[in-house]
Amino acid sequence: MEFTAQHIADLVQSKVVGKPEQRVVGWSPLESAAEGDLSFLSDKQYAHLLSTTKASVVLVSELLMPEKPKEGTSLIPVPDARKAVSELLNAWQASQTKVKQGIHPNAWVDPSAKVHETAWIGPGCMVFEGAEIGAGSQLIAQVFIGAGVHVGHDCLLHPGVKVLDGCSLGQKVILHANVVIGADGFGYNQGKQGPEKIPHVGNVVLEDDVEVGAGSTIDRAMMGSTRIGRGCKLDNLVHVAHNVHMGAYCLVAAQTGIAGSAQLGNGCQIGGQVGMIDHIRLADGTKVAAQSGLMKSVTEINSKWWGSPALPASHYKKVLILMNKLPELEQKIRTIERKVKD
Amino acid sequence: MEFTAQHIADLVQSKVVGKPEQRVVGWSPLESAAEGDLSFLSDKQYAHLLSTTKASVVLVSELLMPEKPKEGTSLIPVPDARKAVSELLNAWQASQTKVKQGIHPNAWVDPSAKVHETAWIGPGCMVFEGAEIGAGSQLIAQVFIGAGVHVGHDCLLHPGVKVLDGCSLGQKVILHANVVIGADGFGYNQGKQGPEKIPHVGNVVLEDDVEVGAGSTIDRAMMGSTRIGRGCKLDNLVHVAHNVHMGAYCLVAAQTGIAGSAQLGNGCQIGGQVGMIDHIRLADGTKVAAQSGLMKSVTEINSKWWGSPALPASHYKKVLILMNKLPELEQKIRTIERKVKD
Amino acid sequence: MEFTAQHIADLVQSKVVGKPEQRVVGWSPLESAAEGDLSFLSDKQYAHLLSTTKASVVLVSELLMPEKPKEGTSLIPVPDARKAVSELLNAWQASQTKVKQGIHPNAWVDPSAKVHETAWIGPGCMVFEGAEIGAGSQLIAQVFIGAGVHVGHDCLLHPGVKVLDGCSLGQKVILHANVVIGADGFGYNQGKQGPEKIPHVGNVVLEDDVEVGAGSTIDRAMMGSTRIGRGCKLDNLVHVAHNVHMGAYCLVAAQTGIAGSAQLGNGCQIGGQVGMIDHIRLADGTKVAAQSGLMKSVTEINSKWWGSPALPASHYKKVLILMNKLPELEQKIRTIERKVKD
Repeated sequence: MEFTAQHIADLVQSKVVGKPEQRVVGWSPLESAAEGDLSFLSDKQYAHLLSTTKASVVLVSELLMPEKPKEGTSLIPVPDARKAVSELLNAWQASQTKVKQGIHPNAWVDPSAKVHETAWIGPGCMVFEGAEIGAGSQLIAQVFIGAGVHVGHDCLLHPGVKVLDGCSLGQKVILHANVVIGADGFGYNQGKQGPEKIPHVGNVVLEDDVEVGAGSTIDRAMMGSTRIGRGCKLDNLVHVAHNVHMGAYCLVAAQTGIAGSAQLGNGCQIGGQVGMIDHIRLADGTKVAAQSGLMKSVTEINSKWWGSPALPASHYKKVLILMNKLPELEQKIRTIERKVKD
Repeated sequence: MEFTAQHIADLVQSKVVGKPEQRVVGWSPLESAAEGDLSFLSDKQYAHLLSTTKASVVLVSELLMPEKPKEGTSLIPVPDARKAVSELLNAWQASQTKVKQGIHPNAWVDPSAKVHETAWIGPGCMVFEGAEIGAGSQLIAQVFIGAGVHVGHDCLLHPGVKVLDGCSLGQKVILHANVVIGADGFGYNQGKQGPEKIPHVGNVVLEDDVEVGAGSTIDRAMMGSTRIGRGCKLDNLVHVAHNVHMGAYCLVAAQTGIAGSAQLGNGCQIGGQVGMIDHIRLADGTKVAAQSGLMKSVTEINSKWWGSPALPASHYKKVLILMNKLPELEQKIRTIERKVKD
Repeated sequence: MEFTAQHIADLVQSKVVGKPEQRVVGWSPLESAAEGDLSFLSDKQYAHLLSTTKASVVLVSELLMPEKPKEGTSLIPVPDARKAVSELLNAWQASQTKVKQGIHPNAWVDPSAKVHETAWIGPGCMVFEGAEIGAGSQLIAQVFIGAGVHVGHDCLLHPGVKVLDGCSLGQKVILHANVVIGADGFGYNQGKQGPEKIPHVGNVVLEDDVEVGAGSTIDRAMMGSTRIGRGCKLDNLVHVAHNVHMGAYCLVAAQTGIAGSAQLGNGCQIGGQVGMIDHIRLADGTKVAAQSGLMKSVTEINSKWWGSPALPASHYKKVLILMNKLPELEQKIRTIERKVKD
């Protein structure tokens, strides 16, 4: 990649405050940037870095523009620097990525599988009977596609992804390395000789634009489908149990666990390391703070929850403050006790 | 699969209330069933769905049988519908599963490994020197079997499973996708230049009928064995550290972590996202609520624990109720303070 | 392996109290040792096991030496038995491990990759364009090495490890099975149609002597590098988000999650299942108890934190004690209320 500041300004429809001819050869955050790097400033809390950064060009959110740039750093004002840099990076990444087509000699594809001629099956991938891989989809390496799996068009499956028999992916789905889609749910009947396995004959359906983080696992339904709605984004090491239904555009942070048959509405935002019990229902826009444990359904839309067991966040905040003051409260009680005794 | 209601009633030794000739072409939960689906009702809380479901045939626990079925839905009464459906699904799944034999041309097996002639080594599997794979065991794809590993008969190893050198699996063990058995334990001595690795020369032993969920990791012992007892069932993304011993028929829910040298008795039930410290001992039948943190050994059998650090569940319940009432309690204290002052 | 007690005593520069000619054929902990096993005692709490163990030879920390050994068990006093056994096991493990060289016929290596002649690329490994594998490094099996990845010398990459494009490993790095290095960070801008992916064009840098536990995931930086300092040790199923910087010699226990752009100083010790929010900064030597949730930066070095949200550990301990006494406190308040009323 090699651009000038002016090239970049043109791309984001702005102008250069500084040297338009300044060359840019890499990307970096403000604090670790070297000469020749492009960086960005979108958060007030880092504004002071503008005076010390070695970045040669910085995209700056208009509200944070300084009166004049320091020597050696050219600035490009934009309405939202974070978005602007994201667009630029997308363009750059697209220019770098070689979209491949065909089947690598080190892959194995069952003769009955249908791989679109514009799809790519990388080395070490195994595609089983009756599976379908859509146009432009990229299976990077060591991916497992089980029998009868459907992969839509323009999906990106990173190394080590496992999609088990009968599961279905929409279009533009991204699965990061070592994601497992469609393992059996955790379900047993109590038998005389210990737990007896309940067969899981359902599948997993990931709708369009779903993205799942590295090492996450989404179990198949006992019957029917575990379903992740359009545009949901799951972080790393998330566990989604059998028969969960997630609405559209939910965000789920790392290491959260969602138990069996839970139903999340649209646009829910779940923090990291959250747990929620089985059969729970969350209204649209429910927000849950990190490390919370949700034990009851939420019917009010856009409400916020915190704690384990979770309470409405505003109430839990009060509880927390008083919890931390318990030593003082106890002292007060002792004092009163003495007084009352007297 | 195509059955009639009468076929199913015969299989579960019952009768059809409705149309015996009704055809069944799929399985589904009551709420999402379509015409032609079989479903089941075993939980009172879903009994109302019987009047709205589109399922054509429903297995119903006898206590939940309505006076008469609605038009278009035939019912089959059974003592326990959940068990009955489980048996049916097992029969159906067995009829669908092609048990394979032999070694796929895309697998690699060291000449010194002993693979039973009725076992199946799928594409992308790697079996190292001296390993033994028992009769009927199925390695689906991309499985790693280290040197000297023993896999008993009728095991099922899903794609991406890694069983490292010297570990041992009993019979009918099920390992879901990307499970890791036998990584080194997390053990270091404090050296002058930071932590120094303690070698782990032990192994992992999984007894008969153990099932381990997708992405879970069970570390090898420093010396001796990490041992998971007969019939234990572990959910997804569970961490079991070096030298843990687990009794028979324990259930461990997702994302729980069990630290080094912990000893669990028989029949323990551990909720999701639980943590327990190293060297802990749990009596038979210990139950631990989700997200709890166990810091002390439990000597009483069948006791219940909750909280972090965990307390006896009945006591913790009282604490929780009062915690949530802290704002009220503080108000009371203030009121009393004023009165006492007066 | 077959040694006599005298051999072992010579190796650790000590003497045998008992039978120097006693043969040793295996390793085991004191409680499960059989005849012929070597064991060790370094912790007072297990000293009583010396009188019941069946181990034939025991390395004993000098302070714990009994007045005389029991019949059938020879003792070898050493300054620190845990260290001594560790050194012995290292020697034994080194004698057992066959360091391999070359490229297995079942691996695939892009012609433009540079694999040192003393490195080993095991079966099922895939090494992409421009990658470099240093002298003596061992890729056991089914490892993925992306384009432009750098692996230093004497690294050990266990089965199923994935190191994605552009990431860099120092020397003597150990990655356990199914570790993922360099998946995209979890970053989105809020778009009109739901979350829009922020490209991640940075990488991950693991410095020398880093060890990462099975199934852990370390995400690439948005720009710049996610960096794990020299000698850091991470346990299983740990999540490290984009742009995290970790100082040297940190210890991170299992299932902990570290959010984006967090900065840990040197020698931090983080318990299991800990969470910490993004952009946090921890001073050198910060210690965090298991299951804690850190929500604020820590400026004091060597301080200890506990709770969720975490407080200074000594304060949180007081809070916990009073929390558990809440039922008593409430009773006291009621009693006082009655008295005051009277």
